[in-house]
Amino acid sequence: MGSIPHCAIIRTLMDYNHWMREALIEANLALAAGEIPIGAVVVWQDTIIGRGRNRREELHDPTAHAEILALREAGVARGGWRLSDATLYCTLEPCPMCAGALVNARVDSLVIGIRDPKAGAAGSVYDLVRSPWLNHRLQVTSDILADEVQELMQRFFTNLRQDKSEP
Amino acid sequence: MGSIPHCAIIRTLMDYNHWMREALIEANLALAAGEIPIGAVVVWQDTIIGRGRNRREELHDPTAHAEILALREAGVARGGWRLSDATLYCTLEPCPMCAGALVNARVDSLVIGIRDPKAGAAGSVYDLVRSPWLNHRLQVTSDILADEVQELMQRFFTNLRQDKSEP
Repeated sequence: MGSIPHCAIIRTLMDYNHWMREALIEANLALAAGEIPIGAVVVWQDTIIGRGRNRREELHDPTAHAEILALREAGVARGGWRLSDATLYCTLEPCPMCAGALVNARVDSLVIGIRDPKAGAAGSVYDLVRSPWLNHRLQVTSDILADEVQELMQRFFTNLRQDKSEP
Repeated sequence: MGSIPHCAIIRTLMDYNHWMREALIEANLALAAGEIPIGAVVVWQDTIIGRGRNRREELHDPTAHAEILALREAGVARGGWRLSDATLYCTLEPCPMCAGALVNARVDSLVIGIRDPKAGAAGSVYDLVRSPWLNHRLQVTSDILADEVQELMQRFFTNLRQDKSEP
């Protein structure tokens, strides 16, 4: 009766997990480089057209968040700044800067690993990606591979505390 | 009795106008390149350490707003992503992405040419730079060289309409 068949839901979830695993690869690279482990990929027509990981310390760049770097690469790949019909997968809910960038880029959908209750701008602190006041809105899905993302974040902050407590 | 002397106010306003004129130089370069004419500079210790103009079309980059490019250059110049004690001058009120970037970069102050009632995120549609929910807030001054900025924006949109009406 117009409901989505189970096989379609399972297929979609498998896709979400597949692409989020790619974002997790980026997050792991960030961890290895000593950065807060956040990763993102932009997917368009079943292909990754942009990848990014947090490189704020390495690049001395306050804007070098995973999502921004992935969007920049995707724009070059598409040959224009409009990323209509694309989906961005990111391990952590975007901050206001990155949420604003998704709106500017006209990205279609956003898939999130875990929420960021302190600075998330896709529903937690602000909801810039579904704002009635801005000229574009995204579809949002969250809690994809949440346990794996959470474990990675915890590993980073545990390492940080250990480093600080060492003489 | 604790009030600011007139000469200090005049001095500050002269500084504002001086640096906004530099942002206007960037905006004019954007106009010459066929982009929406928006410019920005980052000033730290009486020196410009980052310049940017809107290059969204040229770079195929949805994040290539004047403010983002100026902040990226300033981070490299300072050797780190934290831009404490810096001031960003921009001809148009920042969008949510750029306002979020200013918060992320811990920029001290924001000086604006004109407001953007459609997408401004420093008081017009949102106020992300003075948000009680985020971990940093900026001082905001607006209406600096507003007539010159307005005239430049109008010139761009008049040209655009003429181009569209030509056969």
